[in-house]
Amino acid sequence: MKKVVKFGGSSLASAEQFQKAGSIIRAEKSRKYVVPSAPGKRFDGDTKVTDMLYDCYETAVSGQDFEQKLDKIKERYYEIIKGLHLDLSLEKEFAQIHDYFKNGAGSNYAASRGEYLNGIIMAAYLGFTFIDAAEVIFFREDGSFDADKTDKILSARLKKTEYAVIPGFYGAMTNGSIRTFSRGGSDITGSIVARAVKADIYENWTDVSGFLVTDPHIVENPEPIETITYRELRELAYMGASVLHDEAIFPVRCEGIPINIRNTNDPSAPGTMIVESTCKKPKYTITGIAGKKGFAAINIEKDRMNSEVGFGRKVLSVFEDNGISFEHIPSGIDTMSVFVHQSDFEEKEQKVLAGIHRAVSPDYLDMEADLALIAVVGRGMKSTRGTAGRIFSALAHANINIRMIDQGSSELNIIIGVSNSDFEKAIRAIYDIFVTVRL
Amino acid sequence: MKKVVKFGGSSLASAEQFQKAGSIIRAEKSRKYVVPSAPGKRFDGDTKVTDMLYDCYETAVSGQDFEQKLDKIKERYYEIIKGLHLDLSLEKEFAQIHDYFKNGAGSNYAASRGEYLNGIIMAAYLGFTFIDAAEVIFFREDGSFDADKTDKILSARLKKTEYAVIPGFYGAMTNGSIRTFSRGGSDITGSIVARAVKADIYENWTDVSGFLVTDPHIVENPEPIETITYRELRELAYMGASVLHDEAIFPVRCEGIPINIRNTNDPSAPGTMIVESTCKKPKYTITGIAGKKGFAAINIEKDRMNSEVGFGRKVLSVFEDNGISFEHIPSGIDTMSVFVHQSDFEEKEQKVLAGIHRAVSPDYLDMEADLALIAVVGRGMKSTRGTAGRIFSALAHANINIRMIDQGSSELNIIIGVSNSDFEKAIRAIYDIFVTVRL
Repeated sequence: MKKVVKFGGSSLASAEQFQKAGSIIRAEKSRKYVVPSAPGKRFDGDTKVTDMLYDCYETAVSGQDFEQKLDKIKERYYEIIKGLHLDLSLEKEFAQIHDYFKNGAGSNYAASRGEYLNGIIMAAYLGFTFIDAAEVIFFREDGSFDADKTDKILSARLKKTEYAVIPGFYGAMTNGSIRTFSRGGSDITGSIVARAVKADIYENWTDVSGFLVTDPHIVENPEPIETITYRELRELAYMGASVLHDEAIFPVRCEGIPINIRNTNDPSAPGTMIVESTCKKPKYTITGIAGKKGFAAINIEKDRMNSEVGFGRKVLSVFEDNGISFEHIPSGIDTMSVFVHQSDFEEKEQKVLAGIHRAVSPDYLDMEADLALIAVVGRGMKSTRGTAGRIFSALAHANINIRMIDQGSSELNIIIGVSNSDFEKAIRAIYDIFVTVRL
Repeated sequence: MKKVVKFGGSSLASAEQFQKAGSIIRAEKSRKYVVPSAPGKRFDGDTKVTDMLYDCYETAVSGQDFEQKLDKIKERYYEIIKGLHLDLSLEKEFAQIHDYFKNGAGSNYAASRGEYLNGIIMAAYLGFTFIDAAEVIFFREDGSFDADKTDKILSARLKKTEYAVIPGFYGAMTNGSIRTFSRGGSDITGSIVARAVKADIYENWTDVSGFLVTDPHIVENPEPIETITYRELRELAYMGASVLHDEAIFPVRCEGIPINIRNTNDPSAPGTMIVESTCKKPKYTITGIAGKKGFAAINIEKDRMNSEVGFGRKVLSVFEDNGISFEHIPSGIDTMSVFVHQSDFEEKEQKVLAGIHRAVSPDYLDMEADLALIAVVGRGMKSTRGTAGRIFSALAHANINIRMIDQGSSELNIIIGVSNSDFEKAIRAIYDIFVTVRL
């Protein structure tokens, strides 16, 4: 059994948090490979070390005195070292950082030092081998991640190392200079490591007990999701849920390795398991609810349009010619609507309308703005009859007008259009009917 | 007040039915213009006069003896004349028909004689002026109906005639030869006459008390529809409800004349009023339910397809290139389904699938056959919240799996996909929840 464990910034923000992470790692011998982020915020209003590094580096590049700012960063690390009662010096590392900053080593280098230093501390604290990500994670000259080279070198290296800490977020270019993944890139590193060692599970430790059924800004304390498939995750992410980056999922998904989102502050909670597929019946019929505001609908009516071969293609060509992608095309009889992102559409509005007129001579053409789309996602919907009935009854009780309904044959999601002003109310109504009444 | 009244074949099948029609016409002085069909079936297993005429004419054209068949037709008319105690001879007319049949005057001529002769009887019975449709209804050389010429000549003629009978179904070509509308064309004649006289109402008398909420072959004794808009009618007709032909609606719709579908056998029933628009609250939330079997769905999945400009257009182009029109395109996240008529699709199936593969390289592509589409139509749905909830709850209670849902911004109809085998059950469930529970 091999587990790769990644800890987020808030899980490693202080010595106290480090100790929690340490207990978690030591609790299972299978937790062999650790990917740490840089120290995050210790309290509201605190600054993440990565942001301190960016700021310090900018000061250095502009030729100003950056010593004080670098000292502040050093203090953050020594506070952790001291709290962990470690006999560890980072003087050599900070001296090098100082030199590199002075010589303009680049903001990628600067940002990466947060993880680098945290990795050194973590390795010392756990008694694991420290492996600098620059030696095992590679980018091509064009800046893209080199998965093949990385996997080859990283897996060979880890085959010889039973317990290791590999800092997240960065790797090296072919010329040896440091390059980072996009922000939140420690998730990607963890996934790459999990793939390289063919881990049984990739544990992603953070500060929430898994993904939530819906946005906590809309529903107070929403329930966590127990198990979610990659596909459901992608659907919720597409509709605005903040979950893992696609790039963080790809390496483990390729290998069929499940991801477990866990809470460092509540290690007994099972968190959310992300899997390729599962026979496990979901706790609720729905897995998640996500949505986005800011859509516009272009409504087209024309007598006998359904029988006109090429009608839909001509309409969509107009959008394509204007570089606008559509989200949904609900249709009735002799009517069709095209849902687009309002921001993409606004400036091209009149061109699109004129284009539709020319292309298909509609009997009637109008537009509606300020619409929101809500996706109710769940593999459980396919086997549970009455899901649609419950959704629409709940929305009716909440006095919400439904502007559009779209459910394809996949039966894994239903898309509902409402006006922007009903968005939050609609999500709460759907959450309540499926989750609250079941609690 | 001017009314045009059209009577269908079953309303004029016998002297007894003629008497009912006569009482109706005489009951209101405003019923000034009468458009009769040919005598229909008097009983189950009876033959319509029009079918007898076609058969007789075919016999004549093939050079066989057709006297006996023509005599049978004559008998039908004399039975009516005798039953009405009229002193009327059709010998001259039948002699001419005999000659024309012998000389091959065409099946259009043959078929038209049913209405022609019935018109003569009706005029004599009512004491109205008989106007041969060949003198007032015109077709162009290409066979298309000449609305302008007809309206000019017909309205001038009727201005001089206060009470008239104009047989339905036929008119004359420029060379004077007879041409008929498509079957059921007496409805068209009635509509043309109503337009020409700018009637206040066009009464279409038939053997049912108006249009029914749904198909009586599926639901026993469905309720009639009190008021329906042209648009609702078109939607139900498109989805398979047998209602008036479009061509029968167009002339009166142009003039804003309402159509009233009435029952000759139950003249006190108000029947169905067909109007352009109405503020009248419908009796039930839904106006009608119609549907068709025999659809196939092509399901396409591709990661990030929603963001790919031109994706939908490329997919639809494949269908267009194969001459297939689509009915609906429900879409989820990164999935889209294309609903087509199975019969159009079957022989081109592999070409279409290959085309989609080439056009958009989907991650996943499959097909489902034997699906049915049901349209729930009603202007009342827009103002009644919870309609969708009631529909889907009813379908869930009936254990019906929903394969697709489509509702655009018009909010006048919801389209539901189910498997062919659930079709009737689904229609009954929807009928019951909206109509039966309200009775």
